[in-house]
Amino acid sequence: MGQRGLFISLEGGEGAGKTTQLMLLADALRGRGLDVVTTREPGGTPAAESLRETFISHQGQSWPISAQLLTMFAARALHVEQVIKPALAKGKIVICDRFTDSTRAYQGYAQGFDLDSIETLRHIAIGDFEPDITFIFDIDPVTGLSRTSKRVSTGDTFEGLDIGFHQKLRAGFWDIAKQAPDRCHVVDASKKPDIVAQEILNLTLSRLKEHASC
Amino acid sequence: MGQRGLFISLEGGEGAGKTTQLMLLADALRGRGLDVVTTREPGGTPAAESLRETFISHQGQSWPISAQLLTMFAARALHVEQVIKPALAKGKIVICDRFTDSTRAYQGYAQGFDLDSIETLRHIAIGDFEPDITFIFDIDPVTGLSRTSKRVSTGDTFEGLDIGFHQKLRAGFWDIAKQAPDRCHVVDASKKPDIVAQEILNLTLSRLKEHASC
Repeated sequence: MGQRGLFISLEGGEGAGKTTQLMLLADALRGRGLDVVTTREPGGTPAAESLRETFISHQGQSWPISAQLLTMFAARALHVEQVIKPALAKGKIVICDRFTDSTRAYQGYAQGFDLDSIETLRHIAIGDFEPDITFIFDIDPVTGLSRTSKRVSTGDTFEGLDIGFHQKLRAGFWDIAKQAPDRCHVVDASKKPDIVAQEILNLTLSRLKEHASC
Repeated sequence: MGQRGLFISLEGGEGAGKTTQLMLLADALRGRGLDVVTTREPGGTPAAESLRETFISHQGQSWPISAQLLTMFAARALHVEQVIKPALAKGKIVICDRFTDSTRAYQGYAQGFDLDSIETLRHIAIGDFEPDITFIFDIDPVTGLSRTSKRVSTGDTFEGLDIGFHQKLRAGFWDIAKQAPDRCHVVDASKKPDIVAQEILNLTLSRLKEHASC
């Protein structure tokens, strides 16, 4: 691996299996002797987790969208500066459950906030910092939401919104993938978990090889 | 008074007497039968107070400035939308301890964050919303800080910073006043509290008269 580590984000709607796949990918990479940091957004630092807690416990999904966005980017600025960049500087692989694409999808595509203003906020918060690879877990919202109803609530305040919201979210993630084809890889999350795990591991390993030869 | 109420902000560095004057002004206006709401920033709603608490308990003054700004504007977006605008729409007088000028002064002038980016954030958070009157309490930082050392800490994380910081803050507030002379009134906070109280009450009453005749 080169001097700088690799930053991988996992994205997608509810019930797409991101969190499970994150652990499987981290374990597989660690099994190959690689130094892996797993983290999540919003959160990842004590202060950012506290912002997440405020968002969840005060019904963030019903706040003015500007307040949602500002809170998400405040948490992200802390996370990038205090956790992600320092780990990458040490050559580590950072795998993050959600990153800026979730903000684009949830507050932009699904809730209708102006996408250019979201990019302006991103720039003020974290400059041009983006993941090296983003896996977008795609699944029919009806299937995804039926999965979430089978598990204990994670406190995610968006799960309860109507199917139209989740369809806009899915279409948003597709659009994001189309606009950043080198970074984003859409994964069919309706496949069996071991098949999905193999697909994202293979792609990560091949990207690590390219990265090392840079 | 016209259909819309009046929004008054009180600004200035540490130990300038803002909070005392806020109560005196509110009492004097209530004594004249006016409907007054007092509030503060960051805070003013349960969620915004929770953001304030995160900022204070996680040493916000040492965060990347972008994260400080985003948190302040997230709290402000909630406060404006859920408390200030609804009160003004009912014709009330809202008096707020700190507002956007504190963000300009603390994160912009004193900590050096680009002022244009702060205005961009303000626009995304709250559009062009500004107070009708802003009283800027001006005091020599040495005097102001000696006053704060005599009281129990309010948990304000900026009090402990060096005198150079507080001098930049003071100069910043002066510059803000210069740029918005119709809105901002600089008050000599070294005068006796009852003199200061009379000065800001007189100015408020005269503004209320103008407001009523609009």
